[in-house]
Amino acid sequence: MIARSPLAPDSFPTIPPIAGLRIVGEACGLKKNGKRDLFMAELSPGSAIAGIFTRSQCFSAPVAWCRDALRGEKVRAIVVNSGNANAFTGLAGNRTVSETVGAAARLFDCPETEIFVASTGVIGEPVPANHIASKLPFLHPGLGPDAWADAAHAITTTDTFPKGAVRTARIGDTTVTLAGITKGSGMIAPDMATVLGFMFTDAKIPAPVLQKLLVHAADRSYNAITVDSDTSTSDTVLLCATGAGEPHELVRSMTDWHLRDFRRALSELIVDLATQIVKDGEGAQKFITIDVAGAASARAARRIGLSIANSPLVKTAIAGEDANWGRIVMAVGKSGEKADRDRLSIAIGGVSITENGQLLDGYDEAPVAEHLKGKDVHIAVDVGIGRGKARVWTCDLTHGYISINADYRS
Amino acid sequence: MIARSPLAPDSFPTIPPIAGLRIVGEACGLKKNGKRDLFMAELSPGSAIAGIFTRSQCFSAPVAWCRDALRGEKVRAIVVNSGNANAFTGLAGNRTVSETVGAAARLFDCPETEIFVASTGVIGEPVPANHIASKLPFLHPGLGPDAWADAAHAITTTDTFPKGAVRTARIGDTTVTLAGITKGSGMIAPDMATVLGFMFTDAKIPAPVLQKLLVHAADRSYNAITVDSDTSTSDTVLLCATGAGEPHELVRSMTDWHLRDFRRALSELIVDLATQIVKDGEGAQKFITIDVAGAASARAARRIGLSIANSPLVKTAIAGEDANWGRIVMAVGKSGEKADRDRLSIAIGGVSITENGQLLDGYDEAPVAEHLKGKDVHIAVDVGIGRGKARVWTCDLTHGYISINADYRS
Repeated sequence: MIARSPLAPDSFPTIPPIAGLRIVGEACGLKKNGKRDLFMAELSPGSAIAGIFTRSQCFSAPVAWCRDALRGEKVRAIVVNSGNANAFTGLAGNRTVSETVGAAARLFDCPETEIFVASTGVIGEPVPANHIASKLPFLHPGLGPDAWADAAHAITTTDTFPKGAVRTARIGDTTVTLAGITKGSGMIAPDMATVLGFMFTDAKIPAPVLQKLLVHAADRSYNAITVDSDTSTSDTVLLCATGAGEPHELVRSMTDWHLRDFRRALSELIVDLATQIVKDGEGAQKFITIDVAGAASARAARRIGLSIANSPLVKTAIAGEDANWGRIVMAVGKSGEKADRDRLSIAIGGVSITENGQLLDGYDEAPVAEHLKGKDVHIAVDVGIGRGKARVWTCDLTHGYISINADYRS
Repeated sequence: MIARSPLAPDSFPTIPPIAGLRIVGEACGLKKNGKRDLFMAELSPGSAIAGIFTRSQCFSAPVAWCRDALRGEKVRAIVVNSGNANAFTGLAGNRTVSETVGAAARLFDCPETEIFVASTGVIGEPVPANHIASKLPFLHPGLGPDAWADAAHAITTTDTFPKGAVRTARIGDTTVTLAGITKGSGMIAPDMATVLGFMFTDAKIPAPVLQKLLVHAADRSYNAITVDSDTSTSDTVLLCATGAGEPHELVRSMTDWHLRDFRRALSELIVDLATQIVKDGEGAQKFITIDVAGAASARAARRIGLSIANSPLVKTAIAGEDANWGRIVMAVGKSGEKADRDRLSIAIGGVSITENGQLLDGYDEAPVAEHLKGKDVHIAVDVGIGRGKARVWTCDLTHGYISINADYRS
C-alpha cells in the first residue's frame, strides 16, 4: 500500500446534487482487494455529452466505442470499471463492451449509443464478457444524487486519494452547478493507471457547444499536465449537461456573452481536477507550475512547457531542491519550438535568474534554494520570440517513482 | 565518485596510429579535480571533415562555430575541453571560441575555418576568454600518434569509463583504419555531460562523401540511442579523413562499390562508440536493444523504437526485471506513428508474447523473466503496417539515475 500523497488536499470536497444526475460506486469483484471498482451515472433523457480521448494508436475497446457513440451527442448513462483496462484484448475486448452497453441500454431503456463506457486497470487480460453487464441490475437500486466520494473511489487504481471538484456559475441570472471526478497517478501505468475524468452540469448546453468548451478547457488542463510523459491507451474525459437545473438563457455558441462565467467555472473545475492528478503523481513530493511566455504561439508555448515538464533532468533537479537552471535552458532547446538563445529569461519562485541569454549580474541563489524547499514550485520562462503563452503542471521525479514502477513486481 | 558502470567493457581498446593524425590529452585546470580536460588533434593539411550537431535551439557557441566552419570542408586541428560547456554564456562564449580558434590557427599556420572546437561541462559559467588559448602552446609538444586513452579521458565528464573503438576496412586492395573516441553518460546533464564523438580515418574521402556517410551512419547509431530523452546544447560528432594512409581507389560517391567494406566498418565503429554511451548511462544496470519492424518507414520505426526507449515506465519495468509488455504496447501507441493495434506482435528475449494484438495462448512468462535477469535485454516489436525497420538502444531507469541527478547537489 502506498501512502497518501503529501500533495493531497485535506479532504474530499462537499459536492451538492446535480439536477438530472444520479450516481453510484460499488464493488463488483474486478479489484482483487474487494474495493469499489464500478461507477455508474444515470442522466436525465436528452442530456448532452462532449468527450476527448487518448491520442494513442493502440486505444482500448471502450475508447473506440465512445468515439463512435459521441456522434449521437446524447448520454443516458456512463459505466466505468477499474481493475481491468479492457485494452489490448482483441475481439474479446469488443465483446465485453457490447455486453456492458447492451445491458445498460436495456436497464435505462435507451439506444445503445447513449451509453458511454470506460475502463482502467490491467492491460491485456480479458474481462469475462458479461461480468460487468451482469452486475448492473444490482448496482441500479443504489443510484442517488450524493454518492460522489463512492464514485470517485470506484474509478481509482494506484491513486492515493479520491479526486473531485465542484464550482457554481451564473448563466444570466440563473445559478448552475458543475462538478466532476477524476483519476490518474502515473500519467499511465498500464497495469494500473490511466487518466479518466467525468464532469457534469445541470445547465442546458447543446452538445456541439459543450464539445468546443471541453476541447478549449482540456487544452489548458488535462492536456497541460504530465507526470512521466507516458500516454494511456484508455484516457477518457467526458463532460455532460443534463439541462435539468433552473431554466436559463438559451445557449447558442461557445462565445455567448452570457456563458462567460460558465466558461470561467468550467476552466476552474477542470484545472482543479487535472492538477489533483499531478498532485497524486507517482512518487511526487513537489507540485510544479510552469509558465511559458514569449513563444511563437500558445501551442508552441505549451510544447515548450511540456518539454520542461517532461525532462527527467529538470524533474530530478527539483526533487533534489537544486536550482539547476541550465537544465531548463536545455529543455527549452530540445522542445523543437522557436526560442531565442540570446533573449531567454528564466525565473524560479519569482526570482529572475537569467535575462537575455545570460546569468544576471548579482544573481543570488539563496532565495531560489529556499523556494525549492517548499511543496509548490514555480518556474517562469520567456523565450523572447512572440506573444504565445501557456501554463503547464507537473511533479518532481523521485526515488518513489522508481520504487512504485520498478521495485514492486506486477 | 560514481562507480564504474557494470555494463562497461573490460578495458580500453588498443588503437593503432592513424596516418596523418597526432593527438594529445592533458589537464588545463578546467576540471576542479585536476584531471585531463583538454584534447587536441592535429590532422595533416588537406584532411576532410564531416560533422553533425545538436538540434537544440539553444546550441552552444562552439556548435555555432563548427556549423559555419564545416562549409570549408577541411580540418587541420580539433580542440575540445571538458569541465565547462561554454554554453549560454552570451557574447563571452563567442569570445572564448574566437580566442581558442585564433590561437590554434596560429599554432598550425592554417585558416581559422580549419579549426574545430567543442566544449562540455557546466552551463552558464563563462570560461576566461584566453584560458584555453593560452594552454595550446604547452599542449603542442605532447602531440603524438598513440595518446588515445589520454584523449578519451580528456573529453569525459560524468562518464565512468573512457570510450574508444577501432576497425579496419578494405578499399579495393588497400587496408585503411578507422578509430574514434566518444563521451556521454546522461544523454545530457547540463552541469556535466553531453555527447561528443570524434572519429578519424587515414582513408582519402572527399568531404561531401564523408558527410553523407556520417549522416547515414549517425542515424543508425548516435541518433538511435537514448538515456533519458534529454538533448544537449553541445552535442558534436565529427568524422575526419586524413587521406594519409596507403593509396587506394578513388572515392567518388557514398555508393561506390569499393566503399562497401568501409561503410560496414564505419557502421560498426560508430555503433560501438554510441552504444558505449548507453552502457555508461546514468544509473544503468541493463543494456537494452530494441528492434522495430513492420513500420511505415525506417524513420517511423526509429520513432517507435525511441518512444519505447524513452518511456520511463518501460525503463523502470526492465529495471525491476518485470515482463510488463503492456507498457510496450502503451509506448508504441504514444509514438504518434502508425501501428495496427490488432496486428501488434511483441517478443522479449526471443520469446513471442503477443501476436495479432492479443496475448499468445500458452504464453509462459518464466523464460522472459529469466532473460530479464541478465545485463543484455532484447525487445522486438512488429507493428504490422509496412516494411520499415530500425534498431535503437537504451538503458534501464534506476534509483541510480535519481541519485546521480537529484541527491547530489551541483
